[in-house]
Amino acid sequence: MNGLSSKRSMKAGLPPGSLVHIGERRTDSVKITVFEYGEDHCDEFVNEDLETIASPKSESAVRWIKVEGIHNVDTMAKIGEIFDIHPLTIEDILNTDQRPKMEDFDNYTFIVAKIICRLDDEVITEQLSIILRPSLVISFHETQSDIFVPLTERIRGKGRIRKMGADYLAYGLLDAVVDNYFLLLEEIGEKIGALEEEITATPGKTTMQSIHDTRRELVQLRRAVWPLRDVMNMLALGETPLVSESTKLYFKDVYDHAVQSADTVEIYRETMTEMLTVYLTSVSNRLNEVMKILTVITTIFMPLTLIAGIYGMNFEHMPELHWAWGYPLVLLLMVAISLSMLRFFRKKRWI
Amino acid sequence: MNGLSSKRSMKAGLPPGSLVHIGERRTDSVKITVFEYGEDHCDEFVNEDLETIASPKSESAVRWIKVEGIHNVDTMAKIGEIFDIHPLTIEDILNTDQRPKMEDFDNYTFIVAKIICRLDDEVITEQLSIILRPSLVISFHETQSDIFVPLTERIRGKGRIRKMGADYLAYGLLDAVVDNYFLLLEEIGEKIGALEEEITATPGKTTMQSIHDTRRELVQLRRAVWPLRDVMNMLALGETPLVSESTKLYFKDVYDHAVQSADTVEIYRETMTEMLTVYLTSVSNRLNEVMKILTVITTIFMPLTLIAGIYGMNFEHMPELHWAWGYPLVLLLMVAISLSMLRFFRKKRWI
Amino acid sequence: MNGLSSKRSMKAGLPPGSLVHIGERRTDSVKITVFEYGEDHCDEFVNEDLETIASPKSESAVRWIKVEGIHNVDTMAKIGEIFDIHPLTIEDILNTDQRPKMEDFDNYTFIVAKIICRLDDEVITEQLSIILRPSLVISFHETQSDIFVPLTERIRGKGRIRKMGADYLAYGLLDAVVDNYFLLLEEIGEKIGALEEEITATPGKTTMQSIHDTRRELVQLRRAVWPLRDVMNMLALGETPLVSESTKLYFKDVYDHAVQSADTVEIYRETMTEMLTVYLTSVSNRLNEVMKILTVITTIFMPLTLIAGIYGMNFEHMPELHWAWGYPLVLLLMVAISLSMLRFFRKKRWI
Amino acid sequence: MNGLSSKRSMKAGLPPGSLVHIGERRTDSVKITVFEYGEDHCDEFVNEDLETIASPKSESAVRWIKVEGIHNVDTMAKIGEIFDIHPLTIEDILNTDQRPKMEDFDNYTFIVAKIICRLDDEVITEQLSIILRPSLVISFHETQSDIFVPLTERIRGKGRIRKMGADYLAYGLLDAVVDNYFLLLEEIGEKIGALEEEITATPGKTTMQSIHDTRRELVQLRRAVWPLRDVMNMLALGETPLVSESTKLYFKDVYDHAVQSADTVEIYRETMTEMLTVYLTSVSNRLNEVMKILTVITTIFMPLTLIAGIYGMNFEHMPELHWAWGYPLVLLLMVAISLSMLRFFRKKRWI
Amino acid sequence: MNGLSSKRSMKAGLPPGSLVHIGERRTDSVKITVFEYGEDHCDEFVNEDLETIASPKSESAVRWIKVEGIHNVDTMAKIGEIFDIHPLTIEDILNTDQRPKMEDFDNYTFIVAKIICRLDDEVITEQLSIILRPSLVISFHETQSDIFVPLTERIRGKGRIRKMGADYLAYGLLDAVVDNYFLLLEEIGEKIGALEEEITATPGKTTMQSIHDTRRELVQLRRAVWPLRDVMNMLALGETPLVSESTKLYFKDVYDHAVQSADTVEIYRETMTEMLTVYLTSVSNRLNEVMKILTVITTIFMPLTLIAGIYGMNFEHMPELHWAWGYPLVLLLMVAISLSMLRFFRKKRWI
Repeated sequence: MNGLSSKRSMKAGLPPGSLVHIGERRTDSVKITVFEYGEDHCDEFVNEDLETIASPKSESAVRWIKVEGIHNVDTMAKIGEIFDIHPLTIEDILNTDQRPKMEDFDNYTFIVAKIICRLDDEVITEQLSIILRPSLVISFHETQSDIFVPLTERIRGKGRIRKMGADYLAYGLLDAVVDNYFLLLEEIGEKIGALEEEITATPGKTTMQSIHDTRRELVQLRRAVWPLRDVMNMLALGETPLVSESTKLYFKDVYDHAVQSADTVEIYRETMTEMLTVYLTSVSNRLNEVMKILTVITTIFMPLTLIAGIYGMNFEHMPELHWAWGYPLVLLLMVAISLSMLRFFRKKRWI
Repeated sequence: MNGLSSKRSMKAGLPPGSLVHIGERRTDSVKITVFEYGEDHCDEFVNEDLETIASPKSESAVRWIKVEGIHNVDTMAKIGEIFDIHPLTIEDILNTDQRPKMEDFDNYTFIVAKIICRLDDEVITEQLSIILRPSLVISFHETQSDIFVPLTERIRGKGRIRKMGADYLAYGLLDAVVDNYFLLLEEIGEKIGALEEEITATPGKTTMQSIHDTRRELVQLRRAVWPLRDVMNMLALGETPLVSESTKLYFKDVYDHAVQSADTVEIYRETMTEMLTVYLTSVSNRLNEVMKILTVITTIFMPLTLIAGIYGMNFEHMPELHWAWGYPLVLLLMVAISLSMLRFFRKKRWI
Repeated sequence: MNGLSSKRSMKAGLPPGSLVHIGERRTDSVKITVFEYGEDHCDEFVNEDLETIASPKSESAVRWIKVEGIHNVDTMAKIGEIFDIHPLTIEDILNTDQRPKMEDFDNYTFIVAKIICRLDDEVITEQLSIILRPSLVISFHETQSDIFVPLTERIRGKGRIRKMGADYLAYGLLDAVVDNYFLLLEEIGEKIGALEEEITATPGKTTMQSIHDTRRELVQLRRAVWPLRDVMNMLALGETPLVSESTKLYFKDVYDHAVQSADTVEIYRETMTEMLTVYLTSVSNRLNEVMKILTVITTIFMPLTLIAGIYGMNFEHMPELHWAWGYPLVLLLMVAISLSMLRFFRKKRWI
Repeated sequence: MNGLSSKRSMKAGLPPGSLVHIGERRTDSVKITVFEYGEDHCDEFVNEDLETIASPKSESAVRWIKVEGIHNVDTMAKIGEIFDIHPLTIEDILNTDQRPKMEDFDNYTFIVAKIICRLDDEVITEQLSIILRPSLVISFHETQSDIFVPLTERIRGKGRIRKMGADYLAYGLLDAVVDNYFLLLEEIGEKIGALEEEITATPGKTTMQSIHDTRRELVQLRRAVWPLRDVMNMLALGETPLVSESTKLYFKDVYDHAVQSADTVEIYRETMTEMLTVYLTSVSNRLNEVMKILTVITTIFMPLTLIAGIYGMNFEHMPELHWAWGYPLVLLLMVAISLSMLRFFRKKRWI
Repeated sequence: MNGLSSKRSMKAGLPPGSLVHIGERRTDSVKITVFEYGEDHCDEFVNEDLETIASPKSESAVRWIKVEGIHNVDTMAKIGEIFDIHPLTIEDILNTDQRPKMEDFDNYTFIVAKIICRLDDEVITEQLSIILRPSLVISFHETQSDIFVPLTERIRGKGRIRKMGADYLAYGLLDAVVDNYFLLLEEIGEKIGALEEEITATPGKTTMQSIHDTRRELVQLRRAVWPLRDVMNMLALGETPLVSESTKLYFKDVYDHAVQSADTVEIYRETMTEMLTVYLTSVSNRLNEVMKILTVITTIFMPLTLIAGIYGMNFEHMPELHWAWGYPLVLLLMVAISLSMLRFFRKKRWI
């Protein structure tokens, strides 16, 4: 039962609560860090025995258990047991296909959010699961992502967070996730700017591909941001008793940021659609251009070729052929015809 | 009144409650299996006389009557009578055109869901109707589908399901249906991936057809998933008293899965629309390519042909014709013109 | 005040309650049939004097007054007076431009639905107005439509309807209307199937027209079905006290059917949009095909013509002209060029 | 402060309540007509002194003050003062850019609607503002529109309106406005019919323009109808105590008509979109047609020209040139080639 | 901590409440003006020491502290401290990426709106933040915008505003913002009119660009107007106790104006979409035109060239060559063919 599977379908037919890790295995080892902090102290324990983390080591205001690497099903089952977490919740944590959501259980609040980051020019979605309890936060990460480094530093460094409760820590985690969206949005924004210039200047075969790649990234981002908005709103409106009045204001702030990034995603999506139209129009305009050149060339050479053909006929009685100036006159006529044609086309703005 | 009809219209004009089977006849025989199980036992009876299944054979926590093959109208009417099911419900079971729904009657809850599976490269929709009562589940299947085999095995094999009530069995059936959607979605996902490569590499006449076939499958899937979401939500929110508090959590889980697959369907649909645009753009780009070649050829050969025409004229006084080097010079001129043209076009990136 | 007008505008400026028949006059005579029935009897009276229909002839559970032909404004005004119907209701019955609706008045419920049927290859919309009162139904029909024949037969033939009240009769009428939609939808479905084959096989100039005709029929159907859904829902939810608990279930059933047909209409509409894209793509593909042929021909013949032109030049010193094998060699060269070109194009899959 | 301005921007920066007339000045003089009527009498006073209209001349059930021409800001301010109307309301009346709305003030209900009429082939939007009070209606019109003539006649001619209150008069005004929409919709309907024939028969350069003109008219109509629907609904639902129970039914009727015309506008809009597609397809089909002709001509003449070129070559040893039947045989060959080509194209249905 | 950053991403990872100015630095100096006014007086103080503005200088009905230039983070932090403003609010003021919103805090109401103005042919969005308290308004501006000059003048010049409270001043600020939208909308309207003429008359390569520029401006405007509508509605509905009954009417008025401008934005957006279609159609029509010309020319010259080729053949036995009138007859034949072709094309309306 500790097998790995990247396919959701591997679970079809299994009873509910069967623990199967769904998603890519992103890290090899599992790292569990426990932070115990209050206004005046902050202790850190790394990879302790699972049994010992069940109860706090010191009397601290807040405990944060940070689990990095969720593919070990046994470990996850053990954690679930120790902290009395519902099997369906553990299942949701293991299944990294979840959409952002908030669920209120009897003894804890379960929050799922998606971290989006770029890895080797590809956009990767990672799942962050948070279990919020009075004075305890357990967070599950797929990798040892570095977007939470500033938060960890603030805890170590006597930041305001040290004076606040577990709900504020949950806020801190989610705030880091949303702030990270802005980073990606800025990158995409720059990419769109570059694409816009490329389209009007030198649209090539890869342009279309870039447009579609960017749209796909936006779709991924949208999937992460849209439901998160609702989650933040529920937290800000106090759907769970675990969030205090003063922390609600902070969740309201994250909610505003989520709405803002959702807005930006929508505007970028519209821009992409517009760019597609511009691209198609430019393709169509180029076709027009090509057709015009073809028509101009055909129109200029066809009458000249006809004249040459006429004086190439073998009739016995063609007086012009015997004129001394016949040949230069015909050449002149050809030049005159070409010039007047060119003038006509210039007037029509075709060339 | 036991005729078969695959057309909804056959019913027009008949009084309500007239039992007519609407849909394709998918299996020849009707198979009725009765499961009676509790924590410590599990009995199975196949194709017993209809009268005898009315009352339980043993004192069991849960009875599951599984009816495979619904085309026999007489049998269905009999079952309706024995278990006191409203004629409109029996009508709905027979009419396999139903959309997923949940209806709460006085003495039972009626649930309709759609099973979607692939048969010989075609996507088939099958109807699953569930009658849920305290400690009794009657399920109606069009065929002897094998998507419920794991569930049956869990019942036979002392799974947790043996300790739970009838509502949990209903959940198990619906969970199997939704899990099955993921299987189909993965298949479609792979197909889309293949299509994407086909479009950018070698788009042919069948590409368009494949795109449309896939879209049609998605439309079918959407019809099944969208209303099921609402049904699951109603069950999770406790719209019926037959679902216990603890089972609601499981229905919430299926609801999440249904939302997830509905999301995936939408994303796939958008992808298909995008692929259509890519296809059309590539068609339009190829037209451009063809036009460019045509223009290049016309532009290169027309002046050459004119020159040949000019020196084919029969004027008496054409000094060039008498030059010893006239012919090779003209040939050289032609080569020079072609080369400079080719250079021009290369500069314009047409070739 | 008994004039006929097919234009809604004829009414502009008239006071409300002015009775003007708006719509086409579909039948010449007005036929009023009165059914009086109960569990054990069923009497029918045709075209009685208007005064005498005011009071029932026998003590019956239900009276059904069926008015076929509504263009006679005087008759309508009289009926309105006899049965104490609000002038605005009579106006609505006469104005066949109504959209389906349900209105609850003090002493009756007024329901409007649209019957859609095909007449001489054209789709015709007809209005059905129903006045529902305790134990009385008055129905107004534009023509002597035959979609209610089965219902009438059931009343005459001791069907269950004979045991039910007036609300069940109203249900029977509306059920017949919705069942009729399925008939039309099946016809349209078959037409779409034929169109799909036509498009991929031999798209002609009439294809586009057929697509648009079918879309128009769907729009008409949609206008009839969408608001009817709400009407059915209101009746099923018991917005009017005239519908009994047990009949509500039947209205719920019609509601389901209406939703189902609305769904099908939407799917057909999407299919039509898709077919339009397929059509346009095939047009665009054919253009591509034509352009390729043009380019192939131009590319093959232009160099050949140039060669012929070159050896048609009149230079004195052209050694090839004097070779014995010059002519056949040139012909061979031409054949070689054509063949290599054809090969090249076959490789490029242009021919 | 009595200047005229057709620009909304002229107001930017002015304090609220600054009275500026925004819109075109449509009439030169201001005409104020006062109707005082009851069941048994009806008096009319035209252009009385403003002071004297403050109090009724007789004891009448209803007073209707009809102000035609609203550009005189002084007059408007005076009326506002006399009847104790909020400055913001007067501002709204003067600003003819309002969208239809209903506002309930302490002592009156303020209703804005838009009259749409055709003037010299252009569609003009005019604003109608109504102040409804117990037994008093003040209506403000931009011009002396004749769409209220029938209403006036009914008041003068002992119509039912004479027995009803001020709310019924307000209904009469709004009913006239909505009825007028149908007139315009019918005109547009006829125009669309003509356009449809034009498109399939002889689409020209003006067709596109006509399509867009019609769409613009529909957009204007939509702006007027959509918000009016809500206004009518609010009046029908009794959002204001000034509308009596019996009159609500009439407002419900106007609401139905507004919904109906909004529906028609939507259907016309869809039709216009569809016509655009048909137009574009026909343009694209014609391009195909032209390309086919070009290809047919090129394909037929190119080989013939090549043959002529071949026999125009000057090789010494070309046996065919010396044959007696060479010339007619070549001509025959050309005819044969052309005919077989034509046959081929006929088979391909290109010509 | 007083650095400047135009990038939202600079904040990622910082604790909430970290004050960083996000946006362009639009002005160099910070100017703080304090207005203290009542019905009978109005005092103004510019750039006083920050400490001294904490308490009013005189007993005035209303104090307005206008802060122009928000990039100095220290100053902002100081203001926040003095007036007891929540750190998140100060953060929002500094972050000029906010969308319009209204937040109700314990001791103040916080309103954000966007000023849109044109600067050097580019559309600039500027943020206006308002803190509303009983008898105190603090407004934060990015630049010394002149759109509030009329308001300031009204305060100095004994306008009605002098008699009203702080809520009316907030209304005055927001009203100026919305009025300013109309100015921009009028400009855009004129630009659209010019574009419409350009498209039908002389569509060039810049036309497409102008269409897209205008669409982008509309998108910007839409982002500002849509959420402001909700803000105005909330203020009009009395979501905050700081707005008095009488001022609500004024907010209702601004709400109406916001709805109106949002409507206009939508209509302009639709117009732009339509213009794009017109542009694309005209491009496609021009292609058609070019193709027709090409076809006409090819069709006319090809047979003529063939005839010339035929009589250029070197057969010994070509009787026509020896006819005295052969040459002029062939020329006549060519003219005849051209003329009949031209006629044919004129009949087909191609030329």
